[in-house]
Amino acid sequence: MVKGELLYEGKAKRIFRSSEEGELWVEYKDDATAFNGEKKETLAGKARLNNEISSLIFATLAKKGIPSHFIRRLSDTEQLVKQVDIIPLEVVVRNVVAGSMAKRLGIEEGIALKKPLVEFYYKDDALGDPLVTEDHIAILDVAAAEEVAQLKQMAAAVNNELIELFATVGVQLIDFKLEFGRTQAGELLLADEISPDTCRLWDKDTKERFDKDLFRRNLGNLQEGYQEILSRLGGLYHV
Amino acid sequence: MVKGELLYEGKAKRIFRSSEEGELWVEYKDDATAFNGEKKETLAGKARLNNEISSLIFATLAKKGIPSHFIRRLSDTEQLVKQVDIIPLEVVVRNVVAGSMAKRLGIEEGIALKKPLVEFYYKDDALGDPLVTEDHIAILDVAAAEEVAQLKQMAAAVNNELIELFATVGVQLIDFKLEFGRTQAGELLLADEISPDTCRLWDKDTKERFDKDLFRRNLGNLQEGYQEILSRLGGLYHV
Repeated sequence: MVKGELLYEGKAKRIFRSSEEGELWVEYKDDATAFNGEKKETLAGKARLNNEISSLIFATLAKKGIPSHFIRRLSDTEQLVKQVDIIPLEVVVRNVVAGSMAKRLGIEEGIALKKPLVEFYYKDDALGDPLVTEDHIAILDVAAAEEVAQLKQMAAAVNNELIELFATVGVQLIDFKLEFGRTQAGELLLADEISPDTCRLWDKDTKERFDKDLFRRNLGNLQEGYQEILSRLGGLYHV
Repeated sequence: MVKGELLYEGKAKRIFRSSEEGELWVEYKDDATAFNGEKKETLAGKARLNNEISSLIFATLAKKGIPSHFIRRLSDTEQLVKQVDIIPLEVVVRNVVAGSMAKRLGIEEGIALKKPLVEFYYKDDALGDPLVTEDHIAILDVAAAEEVAQLKQMAAAVNNELIELFATVGVQLIDFKLEFGRTQAGELLLADEISPDTCRLWDKDTKERFDKDLFRRNLGNLQEGYQEILSRLGGLYHV
């Protein structure tokens, strides 16, 4: 199998064509960005950490019956995925109030929600990824009502599995962002990545942060936090 | 009946106690504000225009079976209303894309929606009145799920009546904002005001604006636009 032409470069990943029809070659980057790209830094090792953590999580979810675009890891910083058309919605699941939700609604960070909350944000950098209601999604015509219902179900299922996975290693899953895509057959598939870039992960007892808030809020060394997650999940300790 | 002590001063109205139990004395102000109070001006005659237009609209809605807090007009700039506990939600109904929705979702202003859209905004100046989903409303605990369903029904009913009312005088109802309150008996009642301060009203043919966008966007004389609405609705021509 051969790495093909660059199809797309995002903030944290490059997507290449592969020699296999319907498969893409994903290369994670060492770049960290926050606040819609306003804060940006290169952090050596981040690519490897996110590639390994994301691969590990996608493989765990697959075993639990939740399929994703993930096929296999190709190298320290690369993985092979199924080609899907990404739905331009960020599906955010929250178990505990934090980040933009705390700020937006004036609720203290750290307050546990009575039940998980699913939010949709319209993926559009120029618009700043605005929060949208299901009515807005219908108007924007980016997903059918049945698909939205399915996205919510899948997001809830992922949440249940991730809460359990992280609980076994003493980590509290605060919130996370998912993206989904459609296969050529029209099937919805979990896509993008699941990593400390896209999850808030706190130590269950000390509430220490192991996620991108380390970078966003200058709370500490990002790579050390991500390595802690990888190590606790049973990944290889590299440093 | 006697005007009592000042209970509350908002951006566009003062609310006084009245000598009647359960009734409030509302005084409209000549102040125009926009962008969460950042733009502010005093526009002579605005208080009278909004008081008359709002009284006229509330009276029309009452005849159509939609009750509100409105009891009667007391003077050029004052009206008597029933005392309610205001629910801290702005209920926005949109028939045509305009204003914050156009900006938020990147849709061109003036595009008609296939069906009316109801949005909720959390009334909190410090937070900038953020858009909220029904799940957020449950978390904020500002209205029960059944109340939210009722608010949507009442907003849709008001929309139908207002579309008809304005259509008879050649005005297109683009969007509007409603507020609701609970009576002591727990009944939901339409409250606040319905005026060119809270509605977008365009001439059906020329698309000329007769609403607060005249002030927000410096498009022309606010009082002339509001007077046009009042006159078309059969109100007295004062100027």
